[in-house]
Amino acid sequence: MNLTESRAAYCTATYRCYDEKADFNKKAQGIAVGLTVGSWTDLPEARKAEMEKHLGRVVSVDVHEPAAGEPASGRYADITVAYPDVNFSRDIPALLVTVFGKLSMDGKIKLIDLGFSDGFLSAFPGPRFGLQGVRDLLGVHNRPLLMSIFKSVIGHDLPALREQFYQQAAGGVDLIKDDEILFENPLTPIERRVEICMEAAAQASQVTGQKLLYAVNLTGPTFSLIDQARKAINAGANALLFNVLAYGFDALSELSRHPDIRVPIMAHPALAGALYPSQYHGIAANVLLGKLMRLAGADLVLFPSPYGSVVMPREENLAIKEALLTAHAGHLATSFPVPSAGIHPGLVPLILKDFGGEVVVNAGGGVHGHPMGAAAGGRAFRQAIDGCLAGRPLREYAAEGHPELQAAIDAWGIKE
Amino acid sequence: MNLTESRAAYCTATYRCYDEKADFNKKAQGIAVGLTVGSWTDLPEARKAEMEKHLGRVVSVDVHEPAAGEPASGRYADITVAYPDVNFSRDIPALLVTVFGKLSMDGKIKLIDLGFSDGFLSAFPGPRFGLQGVRDLLGVHNRPLLMSIFKSVIGHDLPALREQFYQQAAGGVDLIKDDEILFENPLTPIERRVEICMEAAAQASQVTGQKLLYAVNLTGPTFSLIDQARKAINAGANALLFNVLAYGFDALSELSRHPDIRVPIMAHPALAGALYPSQYHGIAANVLLGKLMRLAGADLVLFPSPYGSVVMPREENLAIKEALLTAHAGHLATSFPVPSAGIHPGLVPLILKDFGGEVVVNAGGGVHGHPMGAAAGGRAFRQAIDGCLAGRPLREYAAEGHPELQAAIDAWGIKE
Repeated sequence: MNLTESRAAYCTATYRCYDEKADFNKKAQGIAVGLTVGSWTDLPEARKAEMEKHLGRVVSVDVHEPAAGEPASGRYADITVAYPDVNFSRDIPALLVTVFGKLSMDGKIKLIDLGFSDGFLSAFPGPRFGLQGVRDLLGVHNRPLLMSIFKSVIGHDLPALREQFYQQAAGGVDLIKDDEILFENPLTPIERRVEICMEAAAQASQVTGQKLLYAVNLTGPTFSLIDQARKAINAGANALLFNVLAYGFDALSELSRHPDIRVPIMAHPALAGALYPSQYHGIAANVLLGKLMRLAGADLVLFPSPYGSVVMPREENLAIKEALLTAHAGHLATSFPVPSAGIHPGLVPLILKDFGGEVVVNAGGGVHGHPMGAAAGGRAFRQAIDGCLAGRPLREYAAEGHPELQAAIDAWGIKE
Repeated sequence: MNLTESRAAYCTATYRCYDEKADFNKKAQGIAVGLTVGSWTDLPEARKAEMEKHLGRVVSVDVHEPAAGEPASGRYADITVAYPDVNFSRDIPALLVTVFGKLSMDGKIKLIDLGFSDGFLSAFPGPRFGLQGVRDLLGVHNRPLLMSIFKSVIGHDLPALREQFYQQAAGGVDLIKDDEILFENPLTPIERRVEICMEAAAQASQVTGQKLLYAVNLTGPTFSLIDQARKAINAGANALLFNVLAYGFDALSELSRHPDIRVPIMAHPALAGALYPSQYHGIAANVLLGKLMRLAGADLVLFPSPYGSVVMPREENLAIKEALLTAHAGHLATSFPVPSAGIHPGLVPLILKDFGGEVVVNAGGGVHGHPMGAAAGGRAFRQAIDGCLAGRPLREYAAEGHPELQAAIDAWGIKE
């Protein structure tokens, strides 16, 4: 099949299929026909001419036979099939149901890549702000951003929340996000929460001289999400956090393009671990948390870092980064990668080595658990970032009048 | 923890965690605290008194040590944790993000059960029709129902669709469902599709003397689903098919309770294979396709049968059936189980043995591929059902003037 034709009018899906003895070429043909026109060889010729534009095509079949001595269970093939755009509407549920709806239940098969046609892509505006837009909002263009996460705030009241917010903000973080398990509740309802947190942000700004985005958790019934977002934005919210996988990619896609929702959206990976980690089933992390999040319009995307307790292998992390940052996606703006979990200041050199400068350094315990308090925690991270950008070894930089960084290094060490 | 207290105000989640050497009791405590109040032992006593109602509780930890000679990798524990309702709003995204949002990414852990508190359950009306309501609509109370699935209809026009519909309906099926990969398209747009299919249903009804539900595929943008459903219903649709997992359970939950959507909703399992089959990750089938589908209000639930090419082990099938049919779920109506894939008339005795009488016998190829045509395919299934209910061996029953059943047995055999 001609590659140009393919890019224009066919979306592709790549599957890794494990089978000890399958004829993978036959399997690939079965997928290409079965998930599109249903049957082909028994169609009359006249009908074939009509149906050809609906027929799926096998793009490639790469069989990996186990080496001598390896178990037969390791036999797999990577199969790429092209699906005509004309078969499905231009939304993510239609694409996913077409390429992996029934097929997901057909033995050991994992969706490891998706390719979007120009036609399909054209229906998606992508991230409204994207990486560059978030930088513009904050006025920060020359360094990685720093984010901190509310520690558990269930059962806390508004004054307690405000205090926690202020302490984080005062340390010089660029973004603060809600805990993703903080839902609409009588103690800290969304509008009041936004009001007092934005107040605290303004107060901190007088000390730090910098701007701050607060991503408040957008939750509740699906068909009320737009109203809920409007409520938050009218109360002053300048960003939203969204548990995308609990609602489906299309909800994000529609929120991100809605004319009333003119603030960045941060995608949380909650529930992603039900989908990506298995070798044999599910959807690979670069598709789930990379390509699809960006396509659906996430301005920032959280995913498990390779450094902490909640671990994702480094190569999977870098594949997500690639999907968020590279130019594969036509007109789509890039999305900020936010590797999360287990981050402390001594990891900053490694994060910058792995991710480069276009990354959000994101910490929870690494801010709140700082021996000198949360504000010092923020400062320690900012110092670590400054030290790295200046090309200085962190220990030396800490010793030169950066006691917060020094305390962080004493507490958690350095990993390079 | 007191069981009565638990049922009233705590939802429970049970996890299967694999770890060769973890202290599972400590892990369970870590989950119960970490996913609720965040920290506990270091709280002042006065604060503990305030926070106690937000604290998760470990209900049970059952450790399965590998037997002598078994690999250490087989060591696991089933951990049940109770989560206070007061921590989350009464919707499925909030529950799932609370109990398995971050935790899903924390090593080898699978969500294998959920228990809904009375308080949480009270926010869910459940299936509007349920099993009994679907029987009432059809006026069929004394036998399993029979459903047939459109074979691939992508690229077909309205007359072709109508003809295929009529052939299925004329065989005496009770329900016909769209192909789940048929989306809004210019050849067979939903309103016209409903009109011509309902016409064909009326025509067939004059031959068969029976009613029929046509589940048309509800697709498109999330926030337009209600409008799309209204459009279909106004055009005459008397049931809807919905790819629940592509949109999230909450979309189904809201559709099923919407005052304008007074037709049964059939839940399709598309994408479920990305979530349930792994031993180590994801969400077990009885939770995903059983408890949550019923809670969200599915009147009928499709899932992979244990008989066909797309296979689910029999015990998982029966666990789904249990979740859909048993009384665990308070006031919720029961949902019709629809085991699907690979069904032919010779399997009917086995289906009735496994599922009892409260089941929808659902066939695609077993209807369309019948040697005498689709209408004969439907009749063969009805004959098989009648024969089973009369307690007759199928071969004997076929020989007594039931040529369609005979032809089906000749083609596909009998499995008992």
